[in-house]
Amino acid sequence: MKKVICEVTFIPLGESLSLSPYIAECLKIIEKSGLKYEFHSMGTNIEGEWDEVIKTIEKCQDKLFEMGVKRISTNLKISLRQDREPSMERKEASVKEKMAKE
Amino acid sequence: MKKVICEVTFIPLGESLSLSPYIAECLKIIEKSGLKYEFHSMGTNIEGEWDEVIKTIEKCQDKLFEMGVKRISTNLKISLRQDREPSMERKEASVKEKMAKE
Amino acid sequence: MKKVICEVTFIPLGESLSLSPYIAECLKIIEKSGLKYEFHSMGTNIEGEWDEVIKTIEKCQDKLFEMGVKRISTNLKISLRQDREPSMERKEASVKEKMAKE
Amino acid sequence: MKKVICEVTFIPLGESLSLSPYIAECLKIIEKSGLKYEFHSMGTNIEGEWDEVIKTIEKCQDKLFEMGVKRISTNLKISLRQDREPSMERKEASVKEKMAKE
Repeated sequence: MKKVICEVTFIPLGESLSLSPYIAECLKIIEKSGLKYEFHSMGTNIEGEWDEVIKTIEKCQDKLFEMGVKRISTNLKISLRQDREPSMERKEASVKEKMAKE
Repeated sequence: MKKVICEVTFIPLGESLSLSPYIAECLKIIEKSGLKYEFHSMGTNIEGEWDEVIKTIEKCQDKLFEMGVKRISTNLKISLRQDREPSMERKEASVKEKMAKE
Repeated sequence: MKKVICEVTFIPLGESLSLSPYIAECLKIIEKSGLKYEFHSMGTNIEGEWDEVIKTIEKCQDKLFEMGVKRISTNLKISLRQDREPSMERKEASVKEKMAKE
Repeated sequence: MKKVICEVTFIPLGESLSLSPYIAECLKIIEKSGLKYEFHSMGTNIEGEWDEVIKTIEKCQDKLFEMGVKRISTNLKISLRQDREPSMERKEASVKEKMAKE
């Protein structure tokens, strides 16, 4: 079991120009999963055990199909490290601290 | 001239495990550009005219090379629309509003 | 069980500038999996059942850690469709056919 | 002027499930550009000077808008190096050589 940070972006193809109804349903599933997450304008960053993150992504895709979507393009950017647990909070803090120095 | 939202991620290769010093320098350049941006744990979302966004990304890459980086993997996810101007704020608000409905 | 096409890119961080020894080991694992794949200069496209594809990607990441890599950035671009099975061959043929028409 | 390898993927949103007519038009533009490219089932890898590559991508996006597309999600994965010119051919050969060794 490995902890990861995973940015996920779902693009339902062949649907209306407004993707927000689909993204809102996916976010509800991510919220229910109990995993730590950060929603932003270009995707959603999820932090947690690999298996749980993958399972949550599968649930989102199933939901999109249930909503009538025929084709999905899913992008995952996964950050894995062996030296210590990855943390969204520490990643951001570490950059902001260095920016503040000068 | 087209307005875009562009998520950018720079990965300097062959460097130390800690990438935050590099990301901090890039963020300073993005801040100086005057473009609207949103920094998060898996990248930085920039909103603005395509030409200015691309120019800012070039400056970041030049800076990384100046810092001694030999090889960079840059990821851009670009959101372009013709029906209206893309907006990070509206994208997020639109999803949050739909989540709140239920 | 759903069939997908998944493009995978592994970037071992903090390692030497030459990533080919790492990519070669991952490709051996993908080859042994028996899944259909297409190796190209910017990643590897894998076609198969979602579960098997994810399991193969996990094996590659484990191998990279075994080789001493401390941190990995993995990118997945996943193509899922419900109307019919996705196929790398058909996708390429369909574009080439349309190019040839004019 | 820097030489890059850039993988580009265009996703026209809100269109039909079949994206191949759009991709075929983009490929014609890439072919006319004279840049070296490699088309595969999950994107197109282009090799050339940064400025020319970006200009070619702009032309593709303009073409998609001309074809009536209202919204595009473009993904770029850019490989830049300062120690030597990046080459699609060498990247692939280098991995294949290492795979053959064992």
